[in-house]
Amino acid sequence: MEENEDSEIIEHHVNEEMEKKGFRTRHTHLFLESVTLSEREGYSTQPSHRLLAYSDALISIIATVMILPVAHTKFQDNEELKESLQQLLSTKIAVYLMTFLIVTVAWAAHIRLFQVIERIDDCLALLNLACMMLITFLPYTFSLMATFPENILGILLFCTCVIVIGLIQAVIVAYGFSHPFLLNDQIQISENQGFYKRHILKVILRVPAFCFIAIIFSFIFFPLSYVLLAFVTFLPYISQSLKWCRSKAIGQLEDTPDSMLFYSYHPNEPLSKERVEAFSDGVYAIVATLLILDICEDNVPDPTEVHHKFSGSLIEALQDFGPEFLAYFGSFATVGLLWFVHHSLFLHVTKATRLMGLLNTFSLAFVGGLPLAYELTHEFPRNSRNELEAIQISCVIIFFAGIFQLAIWVAALFDERETLHPYVHYGGRDHAFMFAKLALYPCVALGTFFVTCALSKFSAPVFHLTQIGVPFVFLLLRLLVRLGLAILRRLFCPTPPPTHNALEEEDPRLPFNDLVT
Amino acid sequence: MEENEDSEIIEHHVNEEMEKKGFRTRHTHLFLESVTLSEREGYSTQPSHRLLAYSDALISIIATVMILPVAHTKFQDNEELKESLQQLLSTKIAVYLMTFLIVTVAWAAHIRLFQVIERIDDCLALLNLACMMLITFLPYTFSLMATFPENILGILLFCTCVIVIGLIQAVIVAYGFSHPFLLNDQIQISENQGFYKRHILKVILRVPAFCFIAIIFSFIFFPLSYVLLAFVTFLPYISQSLKWCRSKAIGQLEDTPDSMLFYSYHPNEPLSKERVEAFSDGVYAIVATLLILDICEDNVPDPTEVHHKFSGSLIEALQDFGPEFLAYFGSFATVGLLWFVHHSLFLHVTKATRLMGLLNTFSLAFVGGLPLAYELTHEFPRNSRNELEAIQISCVIIFFAGIFQLAIWVAALFDERETLHPYVHYGGRDHAFMFAKLALYPCVALGTFFVTCALSKFSAPVFHLTQIGVPFVFLLLRLLVRLGLAILRRLFCPTPPPTHNALEEEDPRLPFNDLVT
Repeated sequence: MEENEDSEIIEHHVNEEMEKKGFRTRHTHLFLESVTLSEREGYSTQPSHRLLAYSDALISIIATVMILPVAHTKFQDNEELKESLQQLLSTKIAVYLMTFLIVTVAWAAHIRLFQVIERIDDCLALLNLACMMLITFLPYTFSLMATFPENILGILLFCTCVIVIGLIQAVIVAYGFSHPFLLNDQIQISENQGFYKRHILKVILRVPAFCFIAIIFSFIFFPLSYVLLAFVTFLPYISQSLKWCRSKAIGQLEDTPDSMLFYSYHPNEPLSKERVEAFSDGVYAIVATLLILDICEDNVPDPTEVHHKFSGSLIEALQDFGPEFLAYFGSFATVGLLWFVHHSLFLHVTKATRLMGLLNTFSLAFVGGLPLAYELTHEFPRNSRNELEAIQISCVIIFFAGIFQLAIWVAALFDERETLHPYVHYGGRDHAFMFAKLALYPCVALGTFFVTCALSKFSAPVFHLTQIGVPFVFLLLRLLVRLGLAILRRLFCPTPPPTHNALEEEDPRLPFNDLVT
Repeated sequence: MEENEDSEIIEHHVNEEMEKKGFRTRHTHLFLESVTLSEREGYSTQPSHRLLAYSDALISIIATVMILPVAHTKFQDNEELKESLQQLLSTKIAVYLMTFLIVTVAWAAHIRLFQVIERIDDCLALLNLACMMLITFLPYTFSLMATFPENILGILLFCTCVIVIGLIQAVIVAYGFSHPFLLNDQIQISENQGFYKRHILKVILRVPAFCFIAIIFSFIFFPLSYVLLAFVTFLPYISQSLKWCRSKAIGQLEDTPDSMLFYSYHPNEPLSKERVEAFSDGVYAIVATLLILDICEDNVPDPTEVHHKFSGSLIEALQDFGPEFLAYFGSFATVGLLWFVHHSLFLHVTKATRLMGLLNTFSLAFVGGLPLAYELTHEFPRNSRNELEAIQISCVIIFFAGIFQLAIWVAALFDERETLHPYVHYGGRDHAFMFAKLALYPCVALGTFFVTCALSKFSAPVFHLTQIGVPFVFLLLRLLVRLGLAILRRLFCPTPPPTHNALEEEDPRLPFNDLVT
């Protein structure tokens, strides 16, 4: 029922727009002909949202997978954490972060592609699955490259995957433009479809071309191919900043506003908000359950061992695993609450931009490290130097995960009319509340960090207290914010300013809207 | 923009319904008052879809996790697969299937709960996260129960978790009914809200009550508490079949049609289609990537080993892992195509029922076993008895996964006017095509099974050929179906019957609708 209504709305909307613009060019005619023709042949298109949700789930799993080799590195008890950590930092964490970056770059390319192609058919769905299979294989080729930096096999495999992914995407674009009813409505009714097609294909095929050159160089002088690959990854950012510099220098405006909508790599380029949410949900869900995966697999005690070692007492045997359970509940709660903050933020976001997506990626990369940090926290004997350092690392990770979430909001505030709901605009009803939600975790993490520095003996109790306290603070946050604002008002302006009243009067205008949406 | 339009539609719809029914009772007045009051206090509600998507992701991960201990069981090379498999079958696979069932029961309860409570606020979001934390802990308590069946600690932990989950859900319901604007529109405007509340609380609290009794019995005579737990799990099915028998015997109709909408456990009870899709997507995504998780973690060769064992040749070292890569690509392709069939099916489903959800769960449980089967397939030496059996097990699993998908469609066809899109009704345009899609995997699996029985020497090549062939068959399926239908028509009715023409004439009525949706 609802979907029918939706489709009617869209249909109506399209017709209206076509009539309003008043052009029924040859392209549109051709398009309408092709529709009826394909309909006659029994051709059926499908909405793409579920395909995209499935792709998001796959990519988010793959992006967070590379934390597992880091998490499963066993520390020797007599070894100092610092040394082993430095060894970890040098290889595995770098691999994790780079893989996360590369997979999210592939994901961003996927978003861009399916913002152009809005409807799919069976053929596109199967092509997309093939593309997904190769994307999920990327982390392995990358970790091969990182483990054997001087062997060209890693580069060859990686580049081959990227080239095939690029070619499949090019085929998808070509297929989409040859069946125009699959395309975005805006491109569908646009006069210069050919220009769009060339522009998009050029952007997509640039990456395989560079990878092909990297393969050739890998046979001649392989360090150059690494430089080339790094260049490809950061190419959009480089070209965008170059463009920005040029436009500042010459003072020229955007060349063709029509072409800037898709594949522009502009920081304000729209990013499908639904897909950012779906990808983030996937990452948060995997990260929250990473530890229980380990627990379910490894921490069910062996019956014979319980019988011999603990004389049949299961409770004693389970006490050995106590720290793991604590780590699980702690990390689940922290990841869950960070998800909650993210959820609250994106409730008020009306349009996501590329910059916000980038900041979100950074935040998620830190969230991915949380289970590892929590596992470390509980792995060492009480009051050891290692324990203190593990707790401080956890605080640092939480701090960065939270601060990047706050940065998303700040980035959105710069263009608040377009990207945010009026409630959270500067001076809006929920502005202070949203700020408190976003600032809570960074503040708590920073506070815990300095308290543990000062009171290193009580680091574990302090850490556990904050873990237990934070959920309750979130529950009572609205009250606390109101209290804090009231106190601030008392201190700085004893009589409420008239602007505030004006804001409060605006509220009753949208009484039902807020309830229903 | 779109969301605003949606909300307007809903608002309009509610108003219309309220006017049509013509009752503006005290309840509705109270409800409207409470809305404006809460709005005045700055109370804000949120749509629940993202909370539910996140919950679905968490639950789907947890449901499929218990396949990992099964998959990671190492077989001794000199041991016969049959024996080790029997040992596996007896414990780990049973644990996997039971956990899957229990987690999906918890998931069904969660769906039911959030079909009643349609809007959330911060407090409900946090309560739901607490509930999720306990649900994700259930598999561990269950595997503890299975490993130590005679120790009551497992029962105690399991029952405690279930009791706390039940109590949190009861708190959520009580909270929802005390803030009626959070409820389902139908309950919101209903006159007997009190009846709904009592009925729902009774159903929810029944489970914790039984678990409490199970805890008491575990101290006295523990086998009884297992019986009780099994009883609780299957309680809805038992009570439903009892009701059905009674209604058949006495011939009485449904008692209160108003109460039958929620928490009725009727096979036709609606199940949120979006959530069935989201949960299935999660399971398919995890299962598709299970093997790459293992590969990324374990199959990056050690540099020193490569240097000593393979005299520095990385390609030779990787050839050792060849079977794992084959298993990965094979299982990804199979899971991906099964997802594709599921996706195609649910495109044409307009309303999901409880029975369809149950069949879907069975299908997903088999899909979860696929990576394991594929890993086995490639683990044994060529042409060994073990390899043949592993291939046949894979075929059996694929067959059941596919046949339950087909069963979903058959179940939907029984009530096709309500549950299916007209195109796939019996005699509809896409009926034969949909049937071919759903029947392809069961047929291929069955065929491969019997071919490998007859030609046991060529079992591996036959299996690989089908793996490579199936994606292409899916690509060309529409052509093949049309060809098959044409041949059938030629054989049985040389002149096309008039009913067929009538059907073809019906098509042009919905030319644009199909394109846009």
